[in-house]
Amino acid sequence: MQRSKRLPVLAIDVGGTKIVAAIISNRGQVVAREHNLTLANQGPQSVINRMLSAIDRLISSTGIDPSRLNSISIAAAGAIDFDSGLVTLSPNLPGWRDIPLRDMVREKYGVNTFLINDASAAALGEHRFGAGRGVKNLILLTLGTGIGGGIIIDGNLYSGVSGSAGEIGHMTVDVNGPRCNCGNIGCLEMLASGTAVAREAIRRVRQGERSSLIEIVGGEIESITAETVEVAARGGDTLALAVILQAAHYLGVGMVSLVNIFNPEMIIVGGGMAKMGDLLLDPARQVVTERAFQLPAQAVSIVTAQLGDDAGVLGAAAFAFQQVSEQGAG
Amino acid sequence: MQRSKRLPVLAIDVGGTKIVAAIISNRGQVVAREHNLTLANQGPQSVINRMLSAIDRLISSTGIDPSRLNSISIAAAGAIDFDSGLVTLSPNLPGWRDIPLRDMVREKYGVNTFLINDASAAALGEHRFGAGRGVKNLILLTLGTGIGGGIIIDGNLYSGVSGSAGEIGHMTVDVNGPRCNCGNIGCLEMLASGTAVAREAIRRVRQGERSSLIEIVGGEIESITAETVEVAARGGDTLALAVILQAAHYLGVGMVSLVNIFNPEMIIVGGGMAKMGDLLLDPARQVVTERAFQLPAQAVSIVTAQLGDDAGVLGAAAFAFQQVSEQGAG
Repeated sequence: MQRSKRLPVLAIDVGGTKIVAAIISNRGQVVAREHNLTLANQGPQSVINRMLSAIDRLISSTGIDPSRLNSISIAAAGAIDFDSGLVTLSPNLPGWRDIPLRDMVREKYGVNTFLINDASAAALGEHRFGAGRGVKNLILLTLGTGIGGGIIIDGNLYSGVSGSAGEIGHMTVDVNGPRCNCGNIGCLEMLASGTAVAREAIRRVRQGERSSLIEIVGGEIESITAETVEVAARGGDTLALAVILQAAHYLGVGMVSLVNIFNPEMIIVGGGMAKMGDLLLDPARQVVTERAFQLPAQAVSIVTAQLGDDAGVLGAAAFAFQQVSEQGAG
Repeated sequence: MQRSKRLPVLAIDVGGTKIVAAIISNRGQVVAREHNLTLANQGPQSVINRMLSAIDRLISSTGIDPSRLNSISIAAAGAIDFDSGLVTLSPNLPGWRDIPLRDMVREKYGVNTFLINDASAAALGEHRFGAGRGVKNLILLTLGTGIGGGIIIDGNLYSGVSGSAGEIGHMTVDVNGPRCNCGNIGCLEMLASGTAVAREAIRRVRQGERSSLIEIVGGEIESITAETVEVAARGGDTLALAVILQAAHYLGVGMVSLVNIFNPEMIIVGGGMAKMGDLLLDPARQVVTERAFQLPAQAVSIVTAQLGDDAGVLGAAAFAFQQVSEQGAG
């Protein structure tokens, strides 16, 4: 066990949009990296095959023998049952239901394998190597296709009793709001994710509002994304700015609840929408200042993530190193 | 320090309605107890005087010398700055703002004194001595005048970076809802507290709906409380039942967010409204089953508190014993 602790981890991050696979040294260095599209709509088997191909390519390009890995560690965009190693459900990976992803990988490569939620992994990554270094209590929100969350308490990942804690995107913000893929009502994810931004922009353009967005997407209104909305907003487009401001408002409302409940030192915003930076975060910070209890509102820093697409693999690796180290010590 | 660990704690719970003071042995036994009304509307100085009188009476009735106390431990219904020992703000103790309650008591009695939030104390009390014994991760909600919250993680009270964590009553459930005393919008407290139940019943009776409530309160509609609504509901009153069902629904919606975020082993419901038992909890449990992620929904037990009015003082005492023990060890 002590020897294996120095070996690298092969980490994979299976998100709603991308698959990232990497070899990570025990000092948190990315030794090699593979990117792939998830193409989630093609269903679980197809996604799993692309994930296994990424692992194979990484092994073959680096020439590393699986037996010389500390472990394989998978971060996946879904609700994880840690004990059984299942992806039980995923609002952003259609068709995934009780898929034994951990054991499939463990059996194929004969290597000790871990499975955690992707946002939990990102929280751990940012805590160990990114924006949250040295911070004891923090919350990470990943704003992308959906909204994921990861919670660090007392320097450790908080996973709850079955390993599924952190689904911050699925807290109700609007009890009379739209139904979410997850079955709940008015979830933060329905109001402040990248998907929500795109949906709202498309709705308003369709209603006939004027916007440079129409030009940006060459008239193909359906292809408006959060990224195109950001481009339009930075160009001064009124509709795009209003849509981002609305999402930022909901994000702020969600953060008020987090600040009142957790009194965290830091909230880190990652995922695709984090690229909007202060355009998104300033209005959200203002809602927190206006509405949260004063003491925790003053105590919290709301910042963007630093590790970009590597947060998930770095966090998955950190999780594996910690587990192996605890098993070794135990 | 090792000697003082065996001495009893004098614990006080200053709530929105009642003040409870007690001498608590190091085995969690209530040796003596004093009850008082808070009469919060008379302002901070008057409440503090009643609290000090309760301490004085307790000391004189038991004949215990303050120097023979482990410590004094205060649980107060407000946002606490743990480091400075201030009650910074209290939605349910009008006029309280940055009151140095800890140092006032420490100086008067010359005894080491602690100050924590009342719902945090209740969570600790239920965890050590009540419904949550042996549970690693739990959340306590106190449903009374307001809604307080306490969080136990890994067997310890989670207090956040400044000691103000756990304000679960002040998470937004309805972004378009009523403004709360705390400055936020659509807080759970505005929709599911005892005050909310009374307010809604009064509103509907005033609008001319028929109800046995009018008789129960002898025509004095303003004096309807959550307790009278419960009495009417148990007598089969349709309006009272509907009002409780509505509060239970909001409570369930709040619990869905807690279940998705914390994946806790247990949610304990305390405070005056816990006396409603399954009348309140069954509909809330159903919302959790229908809307929360399946894995954490199946993992959580939603139960009523066991310690009644003693939860706060028992928890405050447990907190003090733990602090003194850690200081002794450190």
